[in-house]
Amino acid sequence: MSEPLTPDSSGGLVRVRIDLGYDGTNFSGWALQPSHRTVQGVLEEALGVLFGATDRLATTCAGRTDAGVHARGQVVHVDIAEAPWARHELRAARRLAGLLPADVVVHDVRRAPLGFEARFSALWRRYSYTVHDGLGRWDPLLRNHVLRHRVAAGAALDVEAMNEASRQLIGEHDFTAFCRQRLGAGTIRTLLALSWVRDDDELVRADVLADAFCHSMVRSLVGALLEVGDRRQPPSWPADILGQRAGTATRAIDFRVAPAKGLVLEEVHYPHALAEQATRARRFRSL
Amino acid sequence: MSEPLTPDSSGGLVRVRIDLGYDGTNFSGWALQPSHRTVQGVLEEALGVLFGATDRLATTCAGRTDAGVHARGQVVHVDIAEAPWARHELRAARRLAGLLPADVVVHDVRRAPLGFEARFSALWRRYSYTVHDGLGRWDPLLRNHVLRHRVAAGAALDVEAMNEASRQLIGEHDFTAFCRQRLGAGTIRTLLALSWVRDDDELVRADVLADAFCHSMVRSLVGALLEVGDRRQPPSWPADILGQRAGTATRAIDFRVAPAKGLVLEEVHYPHALAEQATRARRFRSL
Repeated sequence: MSEPLTPDSSGGLVRVRIDLGYDGTNFSGWALQPSHRTVQGVLEEALGVLFGATDRLATTCAGRTDAGVHARGQVVHVDIAEAPWARHELRAARRLAGLLPADVVVHDVRRAPLGFEARFSALWRRYSYTVHDGLGRWDPLLRNHVLRHRVAAGAALDVEAMNEASRQLIGEHDFTAFCRQRLGAGTIRTLLALSWVRDDDELVRADVLADAFCHSMVRSLVGALLEVGDRRQPPSWPADILGQRAGTATRAIDFRVAPAKGLVLEEVHYPHALAEQATRARRFRSL
Repeated sequence: MSEPLTPDSSGGLVRVRIDLGYDGTNFSGWALQPSHRTVQGVLEEALGVLFGATDRLATTCAGRTDAGVHARGQVVHVDIAEAPWARHELRAARRLAGLLPADVVVHDVRRAPLGFEARFSALWRRYSYTVHDGLGRWDPLLRNHVLRHRVAAGAALDVEAMNEASRQLIGEHDFTAFCRQRLGAGTIRTLLALSWVRDDDELVRADVLADAFCHSMVRSLVGALLEVGDRRQPPSWPADILGQRAGTATRAIDFRVAPAKGLVLEEVHYPHALAEQATRARRFRSL
């Protein structure tokens, strides 16, 4: 992607970090697509209006979410010409929010530290996935954000078994078995944390943290772990798939990729030096 | 509204109780309106299809919710001819759900006990109202169901003061000051419970229970209590409004009716004899 900017090579551009969230229900995912409503599409349009750009202001995000996937803590960078940035810097978040639809929330817009790159600087990403496994009434206000999972034989999900299975997946592995194939994309990832908690009587939530994720990885992991939660597979089964699959590409995977709507990009973490507000750069400018 | 049915006067009709929930975001409220999407409209259309009715199947609900107001526990009755009801009785909930859009959830469809009337049999209704008063990030997944309230001077809502104010409103009163005027509609109501809890760091929820509510009553009470929570008015102020207003209709009310989206009809309660499933009626039929 784009190279980190240095003051000398910036050509009068400011790298800007945008923190935002969105309800993914009515978006065809993050990535720009002609004649589809995407988060990147509405964001770049709003940036173009705010900063009066004649060319596309190309954004790069930390986690490319699929259609129907939500974000509470997406991070984006974009390079803006010095003069329009200076005009809007102090009220950029508010003005950008005013140009965006209600299903996108702007948390913060600020000059990024030197060397910041939303995608490649990230140390880890954290996602959540929420499942409703109750027999009680379904809450219509959850329908776009929570998977309604009807458990086998009316028993609730076995969260302890799901956690036992999850622990066996942690670490650096070839996650081919849990990735949708993309030509040229690597599948070796470090899963840093994966655990399940019962949030209330009928809601079970996964927290998943990795250096990076390949395509559909969280939803595939959740799909396999629901098989364990439903007692259709033993806790060792997801790790078995992982081991068997590495190096082979033919074995049929007999679990479903969990639906998009339960998935939320919660947080992206950067090295301390890159996460700081770019106070030094700003101080330098005002000399 | 409609009279309770007795076996002799039913003319071959079965009174059916429908329990349902809905996300009110994309509805112009409960009540049927020409060329507007309303909950009653989509429900009556689905009932007509399911039961093959040529005339309108008129429904009556327990709580007529305004545009943007949600329900987790709405209760409705409708009278259906014996023959089509008998064809669908065993799978009525599932079949009705299949004919309704995703923002309406069917909890239950069953033959009502003799004398059941969704609106007039109800002993009390319970609503919730949820407010976000945090300075932290706004969650895009809450935007249609929670009021984002920016508190004065950055302080959180004073939940204790709101509870103190709420306690003074409990009991039978003329709630004119908290009702939108409707010709011919009474304004004397018994407020059975009204209390606030902080659900998590940034979410505060009211639970409001009354025998019945006049138009906009919960949203008006919430609006006045937010003035107390913001320390703009003392805890005695909402009760003062109540007292001053009874009998007069001219005093300007200096608080805002809280927006619809934070409001949810949670539950409607009926006398025990009317809440039971109509097993006796069914047993009688099968003789």
